[in-house]
Amino acid sequence: MTGLRYVAQADCARVAGLDADPVERAAAFADVCRLNALYMIERAGSGHPGTTFSSLDIVSWLHLEVLQDGDRYFSSKGHDVPGLYAVLAALGRLDFELIHRLRRLDGLPGHPDVAATPEVVTSTGSLGMGISKARGFVLADRLRGRNGRVFVLTGDGELQEGQVWESLQPTANRGLHEITVIVDRNEVQSDTWVSEVSDLGNLGAKVAAFGWAVADCDGHDLAALRDTLESLAGERRPKLVVAHTRKGAGVSFMEPHELARTDTALYGYHSGAPTPDEYERAVDEIRTRLDGRLAELGAAPVELVTPERPTHLSAGPGERQRLVPVYGEALIEAAEREPRLVVLDADLRYDCGLVDFRLRYPARFFECGIAEQDMVSQAGAMALAGLLPVVHSFACFLSTRPNEQIYNNATEGTKVIYVGSLAGIVPGGPGHSHQSVRDISALGAVPGMALIEPSSEHEVRAAVDWAVHRAPGSVYLRLVSVRWALGFEPPPVDELVPGRGTVVRAGGDGVFVGAGPVMVGGAWEAAELLAEDGLEFGVVSLPWLRGVDGSWLAEVADGAPIFCLDNHYVVGGQGDAILAALVADAPSVAVLAHKIGVEEVPKSGENNEVLAAHGLDGKGLAARVRASLRTSTAAG
Amino acid sequence: MTGLRYVAQADCARVAGLDADPVERAAAFADVCRLNALYMIERAGSGHPGTTFSSLDIVSWLHLEVLQDGDRYFSSKGHDVPGLYAVLAALGRLDFELIHRLRRLDGLPGHPDVAATPEVVTSTGSLGMGISKARGFVLADRLRGRNGRVFVLTGDGELQEGQVWESLQPTANRGLHEITVIVDRNEVQSDTWVSEVSDLGNLGAKVAAFGWAVADCDGHDLAALRDTLESLAGERRPKLVVAHTRKGAGVSFMEPHELARTDTALYGYHSGAPTPDEYERAVDEIRTRLDGRLAELGAAPVELVTPERPTHLSAGPGERQRLVPVYGEALIEAAEREPRLVVLDADLRYDCGLVDFRLRYPARFFECGIAEQDMVSQAGAMALAGLLPVVHSFACFLSTRPNEQIYNNATEGTKVIYVGSLAGIVPGGPGHSHQSVRDISALGAVPGMALIEPSSEHEVRAAVDWAVHRAPGSVYLRLVSVRWALGFEPPPVDELVPGRGTVVRAGGDGVFVGAGPVMVGGAWEAAELLAEDGLEFGVVSLPWLRGVDGSWLAEVADGAPIFCLDNHYVVGGQGDAILAALVADAPSVAVLAHKIGVEEVPKSGENNEVLAAHGLDGKGLAARVRASLRTSTAAG
Repeated sequence: MTGLRYVAQADCARVAGLDADPVERAAAFADVCRLNALYMIERAGSGHPGTTFSSLDIVSWLHLEVLQDGDRYFSSKGHDVPGLYAVLAALGRLDFELIHRLRRLDGLPGHPDVAATPEVVTSTGSLGMGISKARGFVLADRLRGRNGRVFVLTGDGELQEGQVWESLQPTANRGLHEITVIVDRNEVQSDTWVSEVSDLGNLGAKVAAFGWAVADCDGHDLAALRDTLESLAGERRPKLVVAHTRKGAGVSFMEPHELARTDTALYGYHSGAPTPDEYERAVDEIRTRLDGRLAELGAAPVELVTPERPTHLSAGPGERQRLVPVYGEALIEAAEREPRLVVLDADLRYDCGLVDFRLRYPARFFECGIAEQDMVSQAGAMALAGLLPVVHSFACFLSTRPNEQIYNNATEGTKVIYVGSLAGIVPGGPGHSHQSVRDISALGAVPGMALIEPSSEHEVRAAVDWAVHRAPGSVYLRLVSVRWALGFEPPPVDELVPGRGTVVRAGGDGVFVGAGPVMVGGAWEAAELLAEDGLEFGVVSLPWLRGVDGSWLAEVADGAPIFCLDNHYVVGGQGDAILAALVADAPSVAVLAHKIGVEEVPKSGENNEVLAAHGLDGKGLAARVRASLRTSTAAG
Repeated sequence: MTGLRYVAQADCARVAGLDADPVERAAAFADVCRLNALYMIERAGSGHPGTTFSSLDIVSWLHLEVLQDGDRYFSSKGHDVPGLYAVLAALGRLDFELIHRLRRLDGLPGHPDVAATPEVVTSTGSLGMGISKARGFVLADRLRGRNGRVFVLTGDGELQEGQVWESLQPTANRGLHEITVIVDRNEVQSDTWVSEVSDLGNLGAKVAAFGWAVADCDGHDLAALRDTLESLAGERRPKLVVAHTRKGAGVSFMEPHELARTDTALYGYHSGAPTPDEYERAVDEIRTRLDGRLAELGAAPVELVTPERPTHLSAGPGERQRLVPVYGEALIEAAEREPRLVVLDADLRYDCGLVDFRLRYPARFFECGIAEQDMVSQAGAMALAGLLPVVHSFACFLSTRPNEQIYNNATEGTKVIYVGSLAGIVPGGPGHSHQSVRDISALGAVPGMALIEPSSEHEVRAAVDWAVHRAPGSVYLRLVSVRWALGFEPPPVDELVPGRGTVVRAGGDGVFVGAGPVMVGGAWEAAELLAEDGLEFGVVSLPWLRGVDGSWLAEVADGAPIFCLDNHYVVGGQGDAILAALVADAPSVAVLAHKIGVEEVPKSGENNEVLAAHGLDGKGLAARVRASLRTSTAAG
């Protein structure tokens, strides 16, 4: 049998309720949940199998044997959530039908979301916040006379975040023994081995030095986990268990047995979905082991159910712009001309397009781990010492976690280039912790810093050229990571002209202005739809998110209304910059401007359905324009 | 003799060059610098005497005996900078005349500023960044084939910041033995004892667990400091010295001998200037000791020079609005009605107006130390657990350091109130690390969050009432800390109406719109000046920094041009929100709007001279209006 399949809820509940040794029962239950988590990830087409599997024995044990009424459990890293969903669904604490809707609209978000999912305790996915939150829960409970323990799962790469260490000492000082932290010590973070990215040193000794009770155990040996938790139960201090696990545990080829102990070897199952063939092999392996476990318990095997319609949405038409890979190429070219250029990365080398740079310029590549504040301040000093640092992370993290550090650098008058990928509302799968729709606002007032977002591969090359070789000061380069079809062949761009963009489509009835392939592509689609109504709409790709040339834009619009499109909250995005430029440079045009953007916390889901839900796909944009024109006609 | 006095450069140089035992010479030199640092602080009317004095023996020793060409020294905490200035001026490495211009325009900024002062290595004052910067310097130097050591001074309260711990492990992993960190372990942070605010635990053991070579010594015993540094010199690991010091060391009444070991006892000499009487006593004590030291070295005493014109600028006219104390009162009243209200603070209890709250509601007050990320995530969990947390720090820190944590809380749909004091460009003394002119932009796109800034004590009370009892979601309350005269008697405010403000002065030729006493007071002064030209200008106090009611404002303006005033960068501030509201609600009025705000990194200086330098005092605003009217007349 091939194709997607899962274990039905009744079978899940049967295994959970087996009259058997709790350790063996939990191990079998964890494998049931592995099957369902893998199903969810495979069906969604994305997720985090490696960490889901490394933690699933622990999560299963906690939910079957440890947690009681009033206790709280959450994962601080959050991206292991398919495992939690599988457990909660198996136990009937979550509508089981939701397992078919991981990373789909109104389904299960790609990271835990307390506003979306019952039983989720707090929203995580932004790393390092878990222990602080645990303390908040316990202090609030104590104040309100409520009892309850808090169990927090963390990653090990996550421990590179300063907030983890910031939170340890005050938690010990207050004697918050209600808190137990379990570190899923799978030794592999996003790119590769933790030891190669940014080694944790003697983790147990470090945490103990902060006044915590510390123990360690094999995180896949549930008897050992049980004994370890019991041994700590009487402690009046907060407790931390280093649970030694294997990333991808339970699927042999996902475990990093053969991953070389170098920083150039990349682990393949951190995020994304297995290939169909890998999926088959993984299901076979888990199922065979599970059958054996159940047989030893004298229980019948589980049945695997094939879902009715395991459909995927189709992608948009046309050739896709691959901004991040092209960025990586352009950066290498720029480094050839500019010997002062060095690259800093926060454990997202693969996702930020830096794998080849690292190979080409190993001495000019600084892997900083998941430590954005440290990375940015380091870059500031490098700039003072005569280098040109180019700093990378996802936009959601880079614009916020080291926000004060970026400003501190800016006040020093040096030049640092910040590159935030995964910008904007898509991909929608990971959920709002990763959907960067606030970065323009968060960085938009940093003095002397240019903010640019290219919409095509051509613009990416021109943007890198401008940022490295011509920009007088610091630059924030905002990159959409999803490979995205514009719907048209983007014109070549020789060089960026500050404040100005490219008219990619002419039209006298109105002009869409936006940055990035998602907005420009959406504008193109909307223009096509409006053309069916006889309305000729132009499209301007304007890569400048601040410092817009209002006179130029007014000339381009030539009296037609301007619709500013923001792949960002409608407040604080490019639209505000456009309005301000028009009011200052061409007030008569400003009165005809409209802002369109994200108006609420982004939904998690497949890309096109998320855009549609927020009214930011071509259809939604066309509808907004029609409504706007009706209003002005009615008013006029 | 009474009145301000200092040691002239020739005398400083003489002591620095005495043919004597280096330890005794440095101790005498440190006292010379104590006299001059105290002079600078007293003349400026503000500064940080406690930490300047606790670190001055160390800073003197390093500059006289340790630092060589190619080495770098900087203080990560930064607020001890009067001591560094005194040392550098004494050694002829800084224009000596600058000692008369601490915290004055084009003088010496209140925190180190690499863009303003030769010999300053990096800009600090935003805590916790020092070790990261040291690593950046060393890595850049290594890459460029340059040798040099880096000595970093940190505070001890500063070690509560997560970035410190984030930076330790990678520095050890890379074996950056060039770095020596010296902790000025004076045991007292901004409010009181470090142990009472957020105890550091076993500091030495903690740092050692991260792989550093650690030692400790008496930071006022320079022979011990010498021996300790020498004992570490051969280490191939980064090194950290815990230097045990006394806050205010060298002036007996500034040392905390009699400060009770409770968290309610407040240390009196963290910031600010001594009273004239205290200044006299301090000078006498230092000078007597210094005379004795010099006599033992067979050297003549130093002469104290009285400066020619020790003038202070006069304050503005009228009764001053005391927003922060009134905020503290209003918060206590709100807490009486709202039992869920709890308060969190980041070692700024005194500066944030919370001293009385702590005494009144000790169980509902959570002191978090200098750990803003930890504080904010903790507050988020408290909100999930049913409390209404009110979170405090200076606006510059609260809006940036925990920026991602604030967003994470916002996505959970709970209500948290954030209160940022020290907002805006004044006080100008501390310099740009503390002049919060980017917070509106940094937080302005947080979904569901209201941003409000009151301009009068009446509006403060109404804002607290609205935030606690009526706001549907989270609130950022922006408070100017400087006691500021509006120039008029502010009208009573019953309750805030979302999006709308108060017309405090009518006028048909134009309308100033702004928030906060500095802008509203400046607008009033400008209106008075313009009235002399026959121009009737209105003034609107509009506390809403986002979500402005454009229709209401258009009605108020009644066809007159609107001048939006931002005590913030002109990009991303209230002006952008006003323009967006007008374009959406009243486009014909938008064309008449102008934005005025901060356009470059704020200068450090006395309040009125800083405002004037940025064109934001009454005269500057009036001039901007006149220029604008001339332009539109010419254009029209």
